[in-house]
Amino acid sequence: MKNKMKLGVIGCGYWGPNLIRNFAKLEIAELVAIADTDSRKRSSMKRLYPKLELYSSGEDLIRQKNIDAVAIVTPVSTHYPLAKSALKNGKHVLIDKPMTETVEQAEALIRLARKRRLVLMVDHTFVYSGAVRKIRSLIQSGSLGDIYYYDSVRVNLGLFQHDVDVLWDLAPHDFSVMSSLLKKKVKEISAIGSRPVRRGEWKPESVVYIAIRFADHTLAHFHLNWLSPVKVRRTLIGGSRKMVVYDHLDPDNQVKIFNKGIHVKTDKDRSKVLIQYRVGDMFAPKVDQTEALELVCRDFIKCIRNRKKPDADGEAGLQVVRLLKAAERSLRKNGEFVLL
Amino acid sequence: MKNKMKLGVIGCGYWGPNLIRNFAKLEIAELVAIADTDSRKRSSMKRLYPKLELYSSGEDLIRQKNIDAVAIVTPVSTHYPLAKSALKNGKHVLIDKPMTETVEQAEALIRLARKRRLVLMVDHTFVYSGAVRKIRSLIQSGSLGDIYYYDSVRVNLGLFQHDVDVLWDLAPHDFSVMSSLLKKKVKEISAIGSRPVRRGEWKPESVVYIAIRFADHTLAHFHLNWLSPVKVRRTLIGGSRKMVVYDHLDPDNQVKIFNKGIHVKTDKDRSKVLIQYRVGDMFAPKVDQTEALELVCRDFIKCIRNRKKPDADGEAGLQVVRLLKAAERSLRKNGEFVLL
Amino acid sequence: MKNKMKLGVIGCGYWGPNLIRNFAKLEIAELVAIADTDSRKRSSMKRLYPKLELYSSGEDLIRQKNIDAVAIVTPVSTHYPLAKSALKNGKHVLIDKPMTETVEQAEALIRLARKRRLVLMVDHTFVYSGAVRKIRSLIQSGSLGDIYYYDSVRVNLGLFQHDVDVLWDLAPHDFSVMSSLLKKKVKEISAIGSRPVRRGEWKPESVVYIAIRFADHTLAHFHLNWLSPVKVRRTLIGGSRKMVVYDHLDPDNQVKIFNKGIHVKTDKDRSKVLIQYRVGDMFAPKVDQTEALELVCRDFIKCIRNRKKPDADGEAGLQVVRLLKAAERSLRKNGEFVLL
Amino acid sequence: MKNKMKLGVIGCGYWGPNLIRNFAKLEIAELVAIADTDSRKRSSMKRLYPKLELYSSGEDLIRQKNIDAVAIVTPVSTHYPLAKSALKNGKHVLIDKPMTETVEQAEALIRLARKRRLVLMVDHTFVYSGAVRKIRSLIQSGSLGDIYYYDSVRVNLGLFQHDVDVLWDLAPHDFSVMSSLLKKKVKEISAIGSRPVRRGEWKPESVVYIAIRFADHTLAHFHLNWLSPVKVRRTLIGGSRKMVVYDHLDPDNQVKIFNKGIHVKTDKDRSKVLIQYRVGDMFAPKVDQTEALELVCRDFIKCIRNRKKPDADGEAGLQVVRLLKAAERSLRKNGEFVLL
Repeated sequence: MKNKMKLGVIGCGYWGPNLIRNFAKLEIAELVAIADTDSRKRSSMKRLYPKLELYSSGEDLIRQKNIDAVAIVTPVSTHYPLAKSALKNGKHVLIDKPMTETVEQAEALIRLARKRRLVLMVDHTFVYSGAVRKIRSLIQSGSLGDIYYYDSVRVNLGLFQHDVDVLWDLAPHDFSVMSSLLKKKVKEISAIGSRPVRRGEWKPESVVYIAIRFADHTLAHFHLNWLSPVKVRRTLIGGSRKMVVYDHLDPDNQVKIFNKGIHVKTDKDRSKVLIQYRVGDMFAPKVDQTEALELVCRDFIKCIRNRKKPDADGEAGLQVVRLLKAAERSLRKNGEFVLL
Repeated sequence: MKNKMKLGVIGCGYWGPNLIRNFAKLEIAELVAIADTDSRKRSSMKRLYPKLELYSSGEDLIRQKNIDAVAIVTPVSTHYPLAKSALKNGKHVLIDKPMTETVEQAEALIRLARKRRLVLMVDHTFVYSGAVRKIRSLIQSGSLGDIYYYDSVRVNLGLFQHDVDVLWDLAPHDFSVMSSLLKKKVKEISAIGSRPVRRGEWKPESVVYIAIRFADHTLAHFHLNWLSPVKVRRTLIGGSRKMVVYDHLDPDNQVKIFNKGIHVKTDKDRSKVLIQYRVGDMFAPKVDQTEALELVCRDFIKCIRNRKKPDADGEAGLQVVRLLKAAERSLRKNGEFVLL
Repeated sequence: MKNKMKLGVIGCGYWGPNLIRNFAKLEIAELVAIADTDSRKRSSMKRLYPKLELYSSGEDLIRQKNIDAVAIVTPVSTHYPLAKSALKNGKHVLIDKPMTETVEQAEALIRLARKRRLVLMVDHTFVYSGAVRKIRSLIQSGSLGDIYYYDSVRVNLGLFQHDVDVLWDLAPHDFSVMSSLLKKKVKEISAIGSRPVRRGEWKPESVVYIAIRFADHTLAHFHLNWLSPVKVRRTLIGGSRKMVVYDHLDPDNQVKIFNKGIHVKTDKDRSKVLIQYRVGDMFAPKVDQTEALELVCRDFIKCIRNRKKPDADGEAGLQVVRLLKAAERSLRKNGEFVLL
Repeated sequence: MKNKMKLGVIGCGYWGPNLIRNFAKLEIAELVAIADTDSRKRSSMKRLYPKLELYSSGEDLIRQKNIDAVAIVTPVSTHYPLAKSALKNGKHVLIDKPMTETVEQAEALIRLARKRRLVLMVDHTFVYSGAVRKIRSLIQSGSLGDIYYYDSVRVNLGLFQHDVDVLWDLAPHDFSVMSSLLKKKVKEISAIGSRPVRRGEWKPESVVYIAIRFADHTLAHFHLNWLSPVKVRRTLIGGSRKMVVYDHLDPDNQVKIFNKGIHVKTDKDRSKVLIQYRVGDMFAPKVDQTEALELVCRDFIKCIRNRKKPDADGEAGLQVVRLLKAAERSLRKNGEFVLL
């Protein structure tokens, strides 16, 4: 098929091969080139996908005329220059999360993409997962009633990474999911951290607690931890009508919906306020198990073809960067709330 | 036995009957009297323990000459006057938690007890549980190494109470346990809350997040929530050598000890710092299942007899009140850290 | 109230006090007497319920004119003589499970009760639990479709009992529940056992597997075990439309209903039969948490008043005894199926 | 490296690609050829491993002079002719489980391999898993004491397969694991089944219960089920000193060791036998997570090089076939025990 869209992937480290695998199996586009500075990584990919053209730098790949779109899966510090260059060369761009190191960079990319009429998308993978899509539809339909709070725990005995702390490593997942679920305006953010593990000069935050206050006073809270002996991926969303527990690690029941709400009533005899709890049924809907990253790839291609905005567009990426930067400022102020 | 110590219990509401039941079965002391303003509660106790003398007010009970010690299990606002009166009448005193409404009241009781050489104890029940005693001995023996962080979650769809918010309802449990485990000096405390449920004027905090920073920078964190669809009672304690998960609701494995530590090393080739994780065995020791409240009661009697200080003495109760009051101040300052 | 029915309980061992406690709190009848050969057990009950008349033998209690009905909670070997005597003295009778030691004894009691127009009920407690009632209504409504199989596991590190083996100790629970759920005719039963633990002459079956084949070929299976390091109480019921998991130890989700059925279709190309699985939602209905024994007590009183047959009547008790005796015969024949 | 051993794999269906992947990554041998009758499956493998020679029949591959050893991963009905041919052509052979359709075929292959001095191995994958190796060392060291019973549950809502029933599909896993753990002589076997799902003539056993009695009277039991709404993979092994729970689906705690044993003592006062339970600590050792199939492949190569017998040799494969055939006979006799 002559008109099949042609794709390139820049970066074959931890996450790149997953994108490559998903692009490779799409029928609606053709993965033609990859780039990585590490020749062993390039040849390891070549062995799996013999037809790929290999480049030792992202810039070389970007200069290829036959490539329509690129995915950038490199360390975050290189996201901005590579994406800018790709957009200037007329390529549609998918960037790994977090989108950029600064708010200004994200804004510049959004402007550039808009000017060139190119698709700019961020790989907020979880936003495309069956579980998050199910919860989004529940919230949007009003099933939960008013949202009372949002509480997220993402802890594990993770690999320490050299170039990021636990905030930049884990929070992009939760911030992107929360932003896609709660269509509320963030007012302020607070972050408290701890750095018990050190190595010479290097002493990253490895335990961080974040609170987000929305304009309507709703509270969201995040516990991020690289030093937990057990792995937990659990989000509670309390609503006035129903409540949701999203446990990413429970394959059979990723989403549980509780018919437990509260109902305020006055007990006149005792002249005091009581709140009665409705404790009801629990329902664990079937959740689509399609790999979320496949849906990310498909949405990228589809948006290029139809000149549409993806769900995880540049604005969504920018909002995550905004939250990260504000959380960073609050960390330096020992948890003081920072306006967004 | 002539010399058996004689006890009275003031308050037969939710918790009082548990203290009465435990005192009643002790051989080393004799429960002789109870007091409650509600005649139905008094007679309900009388039916179970026919020999009890009944009083309609705590003051009446306190005035009885034959009573050596009293337990005060009434609403917190009455703790101070009752305890003061009891101490002035020469009775040893066990007070339900939290000890008092203010720091000054707690300090006054401690002074009074010291002056009269009477035992003053606070019913920090969990401090006496098999699980907490096991963890305490682990920490004291140095098995965990340096403490990296302390993270506690106590959430459920609880009964809203008229006279307290979620802070005063749940935090005393966690503050007393933490204080008994970590012999570190608290530097400052921060609390952020949310009050999504209201009834007229009444609008209590029902979701609260608390951070405590110790003088050595260690971080402790608490999630208290009356609006969770699932009940969680879980504390993570990360150490440089071992880590502990204390799950109060897992009867078979309340305490799990993980041989997972981290080990920092330099990867010279890649000129960057790596941290390797030791991921090892897990051990769930047998935990003594004796009812903690029975041990509280026994310790109270024993300390009276031997003129010793109980583990949960007035100072322990005072520290919990100090933390509660400081958390309250921080709540009003939108989470600003408050020095202790 | 003059006409309040008067009750007596014979046997204050392990289970008796639970019946006494439940009868004592009923308003519709009055517990007036208890009997036990052990004076310590009698006085222990007297302390809790001071108005009770005490008897040192069940026969003495049975002879009291003012008593309308008795509960027999003694070792199984005494069930028949006591129940016979009680019925002959015009008392309605509630017997602990298993009803009797032999089929003939159970049949004799049924005949006697019918002749005297007295209520004869067996304390099949679990049959009255919220979970079993919920499952029964699901099956009776046809929600599960055709029943494919019934699989029950009841294992724990239990107390060895002197006078029974694991079959007589645990199977009455499962046989009574199964009989109340599946209205199918039992054709034959097989039991295989193991007796690894011995003490001199005494060497009871402590691990037993039982298979029941119904007339329509449906298979039920039971795993009973006193030597398991973990406690399991789980029943799977497979249906053509839905499947049920009943986990007695999961308080939040005792009953789970799975929308997973199978759907047979022919794959013509490959000339072979395929079976497609529908894998759908899971639903955990709210289950009534009223203590099942309270409902047993209430049903007993109600049936006496209204001269009705209880759900767990003599016939139900007889069926359990029939299954136990047939399983015993199969055990002696090394698992050969025995016709019922 | 000239002397690198050369391997071929026959069969690229469900399991074949896993063997191919593991052989391909070994440094100590070279995978050179694959065979499958389905050209799509051949080319799908070629795409991943471009250097492979492709054959459309196993016989063609077997005739290649340069191949030293073959793995046979085809439907069980073809195992015998292919393995016989391979052995006759001087190839070492690794066969997928179950080894053959009949006892006689397995015996013939063993004789042939012995005569030709070739390695004959069966892919009993689980026998090489970290969990099973850990349990084997526990049993062999005597830690568990005397083995009291062995209870295995392997149930799920599985794919119905056209050519086998649940016995031949699932039991080979459990029979091979049990045989590798318990070095006891099997005396007899009983199997009871149910076939609730049918499609015309085809009506396979989809629920099967199997009991194995060893010569020393120890009992092993297996529950195999294609119709369970929940997936369970759990084996209990009761010993006189310790007990083991092996849960294949609990990644954190695949093997749990309970310090719970029983201790028989006589209670003289009450003239009856009591058994006291020691209820002690639980220990979940770290389990090697190396893919078991990689160890199978390595052991195959190593045994060829060193002319040694693999753990899962022809005799082990034969024993599994013997148990399957005997279970089949018992199924036809409605569960009557069949001598082995």
